[in-house]
Amino acid sequence: MSKEITNRADDYSQWYTDIVKKAGLADHSAVRGCMVIKPNGYAVWENIQKQLDQMFKDTGHVNAYFPLFVPKSLFEAEEKNAEGFAKECAVVTHYRLKTDPEDKSKLVVDPNAKLEEELIVRPTSEAIIWNTYRDWINSYRDLPLLINQWANVVRWEMRTRLFLRTAEFLWQEGHTAHATKQEAIEEAKRMQDVYATFAEEYMAMPVIRGYKSESERFAGAEDTYTIEALMQDGKALQAGTSHFLGQNFAKAFNVKFSNQNNKEEYVWATSWGVSTRLIGGLIMTHSDDQGLVLPPKLAPLQVVIVPIPKPNEEIDAVAEKIMTTLKMKGISVKYDQDSKKRPGFKFAEYEMRGIPVRIGIGKRDLEKGVVEVARRDTQEKTSQPVTGVEDYVAQLLEDIQTNLFERALKFRADHTSQVDTFEEFKAVLESKGGFILAHWDETAETENKIKELTKATIRCIPLDAKEEVGKCILTGNPSPRRVLFAKAY
Amino acid sequence: MSKEITNRADDYSQWYTDIVKKAGLADHSAVRGCMVIKPNGYAVWENIQKQLDQMFKDTGHVNAYFPLFVPKSLFEAEEKNAEGFAKECAVVTHYRLKTDPEDKSKLVVDPNAKLEEELIVRPTSEAIIWNTYRDWINSYRDLPLLINQWANVVRWEMRTRLFLRTAEFLWQEGHTAHATKQEAIEEAKRMQDVYATFAEEYMAMPVIRGYKSESERFAGAEDTYTIEALMQDGKALQAGTSHFLGQNFAKAFNVKFSNQNNKEEYVWATSWGVSTRLIGGLIMTHSDDQGLVLPPKLAPLQVVIVPIPKPNEEIDAVAEKIMTTLKMKGISVKYDQDSKKRPGFKFAEYEMRGIPVRIGIGKRDLEKGVVEVARRDTQEKTSQPVTGVEDYVAQLLEDIQTNLFERALKFRADHTSQVDTFEEFKAVLESKGGFILAHWDETAETENKIKELTKATIRCIPLDAKEEVGKCILTGNPSPRRVLFAKAY
Repeated sequence: MSKEITNRADDYSQWYTDIVKKAGLADHSAVRGCMVIKPNGYAVWENIQKQLDQMFKDTGHVNAYFPLFVPKSLFEAEEKNAEGFAKECAVVTHYRLKTDPEDKSKLVVDPNAKLEEELIVRPTSEAIIWNTYRDWINSYRDLPLLINQWANVVRWEMRTRLFLRTAEFLWQEGHTAHATKQEAIEEAKRMQDVYATFAEEYMAMPVIRGYKSESERFAGAEDTYTIEALMQDGKALQAGTSHFLGQNFAKAFNVKFSNQNNKEEYVWATSWGVSTRLIGGLIMTHSDDQGLVLPPKLAPLQVVIVPIPKPNEEIDAVAEKIMTTLKMKGISVKYDQDSKKRPGFKFAEYEMRGIPVRIGIGKRDLEKGVVEVARRDTQEKTSQPVTGVEDYVAQLLEDIQTNLFERALKFRADHTSQVDTFEEFKAVLESKGGFILAHWDETAETENKIKELTKATIRCIPLDAKEEVGKCILTGNPSPRRVLFAKAY
Repeated sequence: MSKEITNRADDYSQWYTDIVKKAGLADHSAVRGCMVIKPNGYAVWENIQKQLDQMFKDTGHVNAYFPLFVPKSLFEAEEKNAEGFAKECAVVTHYRLKTDPEDKSKLVVDPNAKLEEELIVRPTSEAIIWNTYRDWINSYRDLPLLINQWANVVRWEMRTRLFLRTAEFLWQEGHTAHATKQEAIEEAKRMQDVYATFAEEYMAMPVIRGYKSESERFAGAEDTYTIEALMQDGKALQAGTSHFLGQNFAKAFNVKFSNQNNKEEYVWATSWGVSTRLIGGLIMTHSDDQGLVLPPKLAPLQVVIVPIPKPNEEIDAVAEKIMTTLKMKGISVKYDQDSKKRPGFKFAEYEMRGIPVRIGIGKRDLEKGVVEVARRDTQEKTSQPVTGVEDYVAQLLEDIQTNLFERALKFRADHTSQVDTFEEFKAVLESKGGFILAHWDETAETENKIKELTKATIRCIPLDAKEEVGKCILTGNPSPRRVLFAKAY
């Protein structure tokens, strides 16, 4: 595989698309805005799912599955939520096709099969789920109800990008019901923590935990907790959100429970989700001009062994032994015995695909009792004694995981600025971008004005923001704390 | 939980629905024909997925994900497939809603947001996938392509039943591409084998392997391999199908490869799938008038421990020790410490939910050094010494798995008849139902006539059918072998 990807410095957006396609992660499809997730990309998603699913179960959640379709009358019940998604809904209006009377090889929608009520393809499932919860919740003994769903959703976005924003995407959506406001808020924060832990420990992607300004909240939420990551081009990526929904959906769908004093109350709700968008975040946090870079904990294949220049009995035997030992350590490994491809071709291909560690076994090296070990993150190669190379590789995978996180953390530190004037704000945005901590007067008007003038938005009010009285960079009005601005995906 | 389910003898269909609902497996939803899969039901599906996914990977397949929507022009490309599904397609015609000008609290479809080309919600994915494969396949080196997808599909069925036939259902669909006809046929048969092994070893559900008559084939297939199971009411359930698709889709979507002699040929295809319907099969193979019965290998919870009558320190300590040891053996176990519910109530609840083994720990029993172990399949209870009870339970779970299979196998043997006249055929159908092996003259006309007269269909031509010349039960015309008839779900 020849190097065919654009350099980041030349065109970051094209570089991203090149990586997604050449590393076999995803591709555009015949359906506007919908992608095909290819086997390499889906394998990363499977690893993300597996880990998150375990973390959800460890925090007491169970999985269930709700219908793909939402009848329009349910969809419109929670007004703000409906308003927020109405403009991007795929709508099913008919349930049958028939042969085109004018061309028997074609099909047309059968006008006699019009649905009495249109069905919305779920853009999110609060409506259909809370309509169901009404039947499931009667008493405080039925609470909390802690349910997650792995599903596809559809939002008819006008501008789409592979993984980052697609008309259909895969995600998980948690929907929980609680007896008290406090418990629901704790749940929303707990899931924000789960997302942050997953992002940092598994994706090696540092995130800022915060909550959204009112204008950036999920439609129908009282509070939206978010984790925000910084991409290599200085733009932010909202990587996961967890919403405290108050009693909005309970009221819209009339979901009440009788409390311990036998009085009826509306139920308190949360919802939270992450999606295949995370794969976009992974790519833009770690990858380089040679291709994809994956953190070992999520890489579908962690180690590849390449014979140099070709397989032979001696090399095969060493490779087999290394494979057996690595597998016993729970490390995934493949021995590439294809003798039609040259080693250089294979190296480039595995580099492109982001395999964290490559072991090259050559005849001459073996005479000296060594093999070549190359790490994908720094592209360093070293000679290592064959004896004990498996321990070296196991440690190296951990080092790569740590190094990727620390490198991203350093990048973020280098691209987080604190500014006190609007001039500085604009200058930073134009020069290096990144996160900007600045004072804001807490009005939606100012927030919108800044967005209009600079395209930067308030990513979040960081949870650890210090109380620090200051002046809003735009209006000079008083501000109680700095908030986090950035241009965002 | 009081016993609230209908007896099988009184109304099998109502018994089935009662089990599905009372055991917390699924429920009807606000969307016509679509079900909500509740946590207990979804946990069974997760176990089915986990095992099948491993079996697919062990046979060389990888997962990917293709769009939910199929543009109409692609959908109609393979004529037979399109014709087969056209009458049950949900069709997306618009991509936006707007506020109803006559009632601002309502939404209406925005007529200005009509799609240029309608999108079909996938009833199956051959069309969208083969349209994609055209870009993925160039040479014999790209073959075989062995891909599976876990997804939701929609077929607008008029009569629906929870799990057995729903408008939306969850399934997996394998779609493979091969260089030769022989290789594709082998793949289709291999996956039929995988399904049969899974059904028998994990679901404890015996199946007949066979192939379909032409009228019962998948729309667009050259041959459909099937596994057919027999339910307790004497009706058959098609539990999984694997299709040899010939070059039909390759021709419809112009998917060619250059062979080793550098000549272009059309690609050969298979597709194969099983769905949440399997859960219906599980229920109707094993369950009884007390509720759900689950084979231990697929039960989300294998053992439950109930303190009698209430938890106390001594009982807790014994329960903890048993739990720890069972978990070390890889057995899932729960200790029900709820002191508000009586043991009798809990027993009935766990019986309803099909937990394979229940351990009762009572104070008096403990004085004698024993606990009570109840198995769900036979409802037998025995006293077992506390010491070593974990080994007993581990063995018991295996025994239950075996017993369920053998019981179902015996039921099938008792309900498989061989008949030589149409009178006998009708008499068996009316008396005990079940599978009927009978001669057929191999014409679609006769097949249809038998169906019209008796509602029985040819479930399959069994792979192990003996060549045995005979006379068709309806026409008296020559027949080369007996085929398998039954009424079916």
